[in-house]
Formats: sequence, C-alpha cells, structure tokens
Amino acid sequence: MAARRSRITPEREAELHGAVLDLLREVGYEALTMDAVAARTKSSKATLYRQWGSKPELVAKALRCTQPVSLREIDTGSLRTDFARMVECSDDAQMAKDTALMRGLAHAVHESPELHKALRDLLVDPEINGLQTMLQRAVDRGEIRPDCPALDFVPHMLIGAFIALPLIEDRPVDRNFLGHFIDAVVFPALGV
Amino acid sequence: MAARRSRITPEREAELHGAVLDLLREVGYEALTMDAVAARTKSSKATLYRQWGSKPELVAKALRCTQPVSLREIDTGSLRTDFARMVECSDDAQMAKDTALMRGLAHAVHESPELHKALRDLLVDPEINGLQTMLQRAVDRGEIRPDCPALDFVPHMLIGAFIALPLIEDRPVDRNFLGHFIDAVVFPALGV
Repeated sequence: MAARRSRITPEREAELHGAVLDLLREVGYEALTMDAVAARTKSSKATLYRQWGSKPELVAKALRCTQPVSLREIDTGSLRTDFARMVECSDDAQMAKDTALMRGLAHAVHESPELHKALRDLLVDPEINGLQTMLQRAVDRGEIRPDCPALDFVPHMLIGAFIALPLIEDRPVDRNFLGHFIDAVVFPALGV
Repeated sequence: MAARRSRITPEREAELHGAVLDLLREVGYEALTMDAVAARTKSSKATLYRQWGSKPELVAKALRCTQPVSLREIDTGSLRTDFARMVECSDDAQMAKDTALMRGLAHAVHESPELHKALRDLLVDPEINGLQTMLQRAVDRGEIRPDCPALDFVPHMLIGAFIALPLIEDRPVDRNFLGHFIDAVVFPALGV
C-alpha cells in the first residue's frame, strides 16, 4: 500500500498541533471543537478531517508532537546509557506543561472511549512497545536476566512515578527526580 | 484536651459514610450537596456540619472508612510479612470500586483546594506516615540498609502502580497484581 502524500508541510503541521494544544489548555477536551481549531489555525474543517480523521486523533497526534524523543529512537548500546539518554532528552518545563495537560485529559478519557483509544494507539502503546524493545535488547546483551520478574513492570514503574509524584509531593516530575527514581528503583528491580 | 464525645454511634457513622460514597458515585463530587446527604441519611445539615465540619472533610472521612486496614496497624515482625498482611487485607471488589471513585475525584481535587487538603490530611499523609514507620522498623531490624536510596520512593512505587495499571492494562489493581508487583519491584529495589 502506497503511503498517502501529506498535503501540508511539517512546519504547518507543527503549527497546527501547537494551536490544538493551546486550545486544549484553554478550554479543555470536552469544549474543544473542530470549528475552533479551524478558526484558530485559519484552515478549513475539511482539511482538518482529511489530515487527522477526528478530534480524538487530532488531539493524540498533537500530544505526540510534544514528546522530545520517542523511546523507539534510543539505542545507545547499553540499558544504563539508553535510560540516561531518555532523561537527557526530557525537558523540565515541557514535563510540567504535559503534567497539567494530561491531568485535564485524564477525566476526558473516561468520558470518551474514542479519545481513550486514540491516546492508547497513537501515544501509549508505541512508547510501551519502544520500551519493551529497549529492554529486550538489554536481555539479549545479557544485562538483564531473561526471567527477571520486574521486566513486566517497567511501564508501571515509569508511568506510575509520573502520576504519583504530583499527588504525593505536589510537583511535576523533572529530570532530577526521573534520574534518581531510575537509579533507586528501576535498575535495582531489574538487577542492573 | 478532652476528646469531644461523639454524638452518633459507630453504626450510624458507617451508615452515613456509606450514603456519602453512594451519592459520590451517583452524582460526582461537584454535584454532591450537604442537602442531598442530609436528605439521603435523614439527618439535619446542622448535625452533618457539627460532626464532619465540611463537605471535603465528610468525603475524605467517608473514603477513609473504605480502607479495610490502616498501614499504621500492621506490625508483624518483618517487612515481608507486613507487606503480605497488607495484600491479604486488600479486597479485590473494594479496590475496583475505589479505583472508579478515585478516578472521579482526581478531577475534583484540581478544582477544589479544600478537597485536596482534606484528602491529603485525612487519607494520604496518614497512610504514607504508616508506611514510613513500617519501613523504619525494617531498617532498625537490619532488613533494609539505612542508606538504601529506594526508601524514599516506596509511596511512589505503590501509589504509582495503583494508578498506572488501569491506564496500561485497562483493569484495576487486585491482590494478585499487588503481590507480584511487591515481589518483583518493591523488595528487589529495597534489597530485601
């Protein structure tokens, strides 16, 4: 199957995604309309639907663009340096903004199965798969024992830390916390 | 200071808390009114305010009553059996109900600083303190090294797992998951 040619430039796409995230922060998911996105970005609704399919997909793709790097792209030769690279690519200001955004979306997800599915398919599953690939390479290199029971729980540790820290300590995750958490919890649990 | 005599029986208190949680599940925190609680429980609003102080405190205290056991009460002589007792006291059906309830409240918490404070003071902080006491006893008994870096992150691991599992696997935490997570992640991170 031939890939459909994208009709807009990457710059225009980034601009559109930025406008969607701005609107999302201003009015929340429920109140966000394709009309408002079209008006804000001076584009037609037909273009929006053709390019992104639907509001949930548009939001999920816009969120994906806030990620500085995908875990799929990291392959430095050892698990320690892979995780160090992940931390290094993180941006404190961006993580704080994302925490606020995801908090607003957490409610919307339970009202909209379509948004839940779009976030899972476009955002969560690809990153979890990227993480599993990274871990499998570490197993193949002999850095982690193949029967290490913590292998199944790495997404729970990382995603859990992101959500638990604001609840427990009233602050978003930053690179410093992420680095300490990985050193203190993830590596010892994996026996690395 | 003498403790103020409670004017209602423990049975009546449990009945009131149950009615508050029922209403909370039915209408959500924002729409919950003291009038509705008074009507549902056939009590006067004056009694509700005298006994519980405010809507956020009433909700926090009602939620506290759903906990089968407080971590403060667990002291079996070793960390392994303390955690085993914690898992043993958990109730799968109750945890599933709590997950749905807390999901609804997560949104309300960010709209109401009073609810946030009541949940923190009456629910979260006492359990985190109970957990820290449990861990300190294990350090004193020589089961955990006093400089173990994971000691600071046990609440993040446990609370994180509770929140991350429904997001990642679309299911609430149950005893089986909790037991495996503790064995695979918490004990190895603590070097136990």
